[in-house]
Amino acid sequence: MKFIEGGITAPVGIKAAGICCGIKQSNLDLALIYSEKTAQIAAVFTANEVQAAPIKLCRERLCSGLIQAVIINSGNANACTGQQGLLDSRTMADITAAELQIDSSLVWAASTGIIGERLPISKIKSGIKKIVPALSKAMGKQAARAILTTDTCTKEAAVELEIADKTITIGAMAKGSGMICPNMATMLCFVTTDAHIKAEHLQLALNQAVNQSFNRISVDGDTSTNDMVMILANNAAGGAQITPESAYWQDFCDALNMMCIKLAKDIIKDGEGATKFIEIKVIDAISEKQAQKIASCVGNSALVKTALFGQQANWGRILAAAGMAGAGIIPEQIDLYLNSVKLVENGCGLGEQVAIEAEERLKSKDIEIIVDLKQGDKSYNMWSCDLSYEYVRINADYHT
Amino acid sequence: MKFIEGGITAPVGIKAAGICCGIKQSNLDLALIYSEKTAQIAAVFTANEVQAAPIKLCRERLCSGLIQAVIINSGNANACTGQQGLLDSRTMADITAAELQIDSSLVWAASTGIIGERLPISKIKSGIKKIVPALSKAMGKQAARAILTTDTCTKEAAVELEIADKTITIGAMAKGSGMICPNMATMLCFVTTDAHIKAEHLQLALNQAVNQSFNRISVDGDTSTNDMVMILANNAAGGAQITPESAYWQDFCDALNMMCIKLAKDIIKDGEGATKFIEIKVIDAISEKQAQKIASCVGNSALVKTALFGQQANWGRILAAAGMAGAGIIPEQIDLYLNSVKLVENGCGLGEQVAIEAEERLKSKDIEIIVDLKQGDKSYNMWSCDLSYEYVRINADYHT
Repeated sequence: MKFIEGGITAPVGIKAAGICCGIKQSNLDLALIYSEKTAQIAAVFTANEVQAAPIKLCRERLCSGLIQAVIINSGNANACTGQQGLLDSRTMADITAAELQIDSSLVWAASTGIIGERLPISKIKSGIKKIVPALSKAMGKQAARAILTTDTCTKEAAVELEIADKTITIGAMAKGSGMICPNMATMLCFVTTDAHIKAEHLQLALNQAVNQSFNRISVDGDTSTNDMVMILANNAAGGAQITPESAYWQDFCDALNMMCIKLAKDIIKDGEGATKFIEIKVIDAISEKQAQKIASCVGNSALVKTALFGQQANWGRILAAAGMAGAGIIPEQIDLYLNSVKLVENGCGLGEQVAIEAEERLKSKDIEIIVDLKQGDKSYNMWSCDLSYEYVRINADYHT
Repeated sequence: MKFIEGGITAPVGIKAAGICCGIKQSNLDLALIYSEKTAQIAAVFTANEVQAAPIKLCRERLCSGLIQAVIINSGNANACTGQQGLLDSRTMADITAAELQIDSSLVWAASTGIIGERLPISKIKSGIKKIVPALSKAMGKQAARAILTTDTCTKEAAVELEIADKTITIGAMAKGSGMICPNMATMLCFVTTDAHIKAEHLQLALNQAVNQSFNRISVDGDTSTNDMVMILANNAAGGAQITPESAYWQDFCDALNMMCIKLAKDIIKDGEGATKFIEIKVIDAISEKQAQKIASCVGNSALVKTALFGQQANWGRILAAAGMAGAGIIPEQIDLYLNSVKLVENGCGLGEQVAIEAEERLKSKDIEIIVDLKQGDKSYNMWSCDLSYEYVRINADYHT
């Protein structure tokens, strides 16, 4: 299994396109993913109780287990738009289906951008008429650009693996840079594969991949109304069927994980205003749950994030954040490392000299925090970024 | 009952002082509160699992129900300092007791400042010898200055009330501006009163006051290792005994609440980098717990805070934050107001015109967010501040 060039259109039988339909003036703002064959579908949606209209539509359509196209706009989230919003998302899918000459139930709609404004449906209508004829393998790159909002770069990945002597490909594109938090935040990720796998098994594979990747990232602890990760499998590679009982299951899951982890990290690296990529590893915990609670408190702490932006070896804030989790730690036996420099042993600081050494290493763009609880043998890791002036600027200025 | 001039030394029989002992170079960094008579004591401590040495000492001494003096240093938290830290806090209290010629068990120690460095105990020792002779009513103001860290102003309050024809006074000083979060954060609050009330009843009064005040404020969602609110009652006014059964109970609690709410708001107004004072009211909830969860998510949301710093009427972020709480809201029936402008009705935005009106009103320093759930008749309010460039600067530069 290996990463290959390409993104969403890497698998056999998948085309895409990205155009500007005028929501965001001159930027690409409308994307379409199309599978030549009807495909199996699985998806994970935002945990936020306030759910945008397209999320409601997709949830409804997930039940059939089948999909053939996804139409996505950026610049407008179609969230908090009531019955009109639901109608608009449905119209967006219906027009796409009509242009593609497929059944409307096989089309999903997704939106991201400002909350609370009505979708400019006439712009989208004309956009759809333009985007369908533009579908191609090469236009995958434009699709990846068209789904961005405050992102500064596209997030694409493709992985190849052998299953029973056939080459299977998984491709994906994602967006997200602010409002990132475990359990889906302002992020969208679309995954395609030409593997042979049933919807119910695809869902199992996706759930475990999301738990290993997108549920472990945090930019600012805020979740959003619009987010989802979806995967479609069109069996276009003509390979053996992948089931949890089959010999290929673990390979397929590993490949999917590898790709989702890469995209999750890409989102953090493009975190709003981020200057540091922070990996938090909580080790020797009683349970994964305990480790997760602590990692989450450390990863979401504004004080830890600003300290790391300032390149300070302020381990006191990290310990204080760990203590906030209420996860039953024993402070007197915790060890703590920053970029491999041991700063704390049994809950006590190891002095000025190691702090100076750590601050030197904090100049690196990559930061690794290890919190060793010395209570058990479970662990959890997650990824976060620092909190900079630029984060404040972006979010004070931009109307999301 | 009314606010009067003064602070910690307002009640009869209370003196205080604040000096510079050299921890913070030329700034005041050592404070002493002294009651001429042995007093009843009650306290609430940080919920953080990582607890500083002075917190451990005070917890231990709380059991006796008696106190006569509190020695407080700023500039060093004496947290994560192991056995040595415990010894240092004990020494700090012991020397104070010796200088005051009282029993050591009657002296509490408190610390705030940088975590993980050993307390400069010799500086504190010489400081204590200087501070005891300086005790006076007038020096209360210096005490209020000596407990500050990143605060830009002192926080003092005093309240007077009549109980059975006697005038009872409650005085207080507090500190805190960052790391503020419900359940005690980097904040200290010392309250004195000349009322006649037993330790156990004082504790009841304090618990309810803290729930109405300090547990409702948030600067950045981070709690700390060192924080506490304590109240001592020395019966120096010679009034009637206040018990939960007495007619004066509610008056005493009301006066204490009034004062604690004022100080809690003062802390938010002095929030690190704060340019806005934000009151969040969640109304018509099924339960206070539901309202509290939602208020807390809105008050701690970095996206809401940056939007308000930018004076944006970005109600979508507020709704999304409410949805994050997982508190069982019905998004389709929520109304939302910003500074009395209704922006959302039944989960839908009310358009451009009202948003423009709201943005005009967001230029005010005071912001009121009302989230009307229309599910019941319970409510909860809390106080927060915005997230500015200055917050990032303070916390990226300052070694807490």
